[in-house]
Amino acid sequence: MKISLKDFKYGKDGLIPAIIQDHKTGEVLMLAYMNKESLRRTIKGGKTCFWSRSRKEYWVKGMTSGHFQYVKSVFYDCDMDAFLIKVRQVGVACHTGNRSCFYRKIKSK
Amino acid sequence: MKISLKDFKYGKDGLIPAIIQDHKTGEVLMLAYMNKESLRRTIKGGKTCFWSRSRKEYWVKGMTSGHFQYVKSVFYDCDMDAFLIKVRQVGVACHTGNRSCFYRKIKSK
Repeated sequence: MKISLKDFKYGKDGLIPAIIQDHKTGEVLMLAYMNKESLRRTIKGGKTCFWSRSRKEYWVKGMTSGHFQYVKSVFYDCDMDAFLIKVRQVGVACHTGNRSCFYRKIKSK
Repeated sequence: MKISLKDFKYGKDGLIPAIIQDHKTGEVLMLAYMNKESLRRTIKGGKTCFWSRSRKEYWVKGMTSGHFQYVKSVFYDCDMDAFLIKVRQVGVACHTGNRSCFYRKIKSK
């Protein structure tokens, strides 16, 4: 599909949330934010690159830890304001050492 | 785990993104936003309730379409600023008729 990076609906802060999912197990690993440039780098480089809202810098996931996320596919939603990126996760996604950042539960039925 | 709704890190707009995932297949269905009250309603009512940023109102998913999302479990991430909600989806999640809102792909390796 022919689509341009500028076609997506970035928030006021220029960011779009990206859900990162293990391409094999379907486990949701984390949620982070991308601006247009980090999306471009992700697609071009084949590894996830986010915009760190706290550090205000580009952040290739795994650059310091080695826990890279190799991009398998990038999906966008009906409103064009969210991404779902399926990856091959090296090591763990979470800085706590858990495989997924969503390791705590508040409710279960 | 004992946690209060006020413990989460809501954005400047009072919102937190919530990833909705099929509890059985692992398919990511959509991403929507919750404020404190919609989170409370989701947990209490057992069906997802979001805050519509466009309509500026609470929105119980499925209230008009019948495509409710019955909550199975609610996870929160390491930064406490994102939710992962596993649901039983009735019908489809997307208003386009697709099961998931993420039905379009921009890249595949």
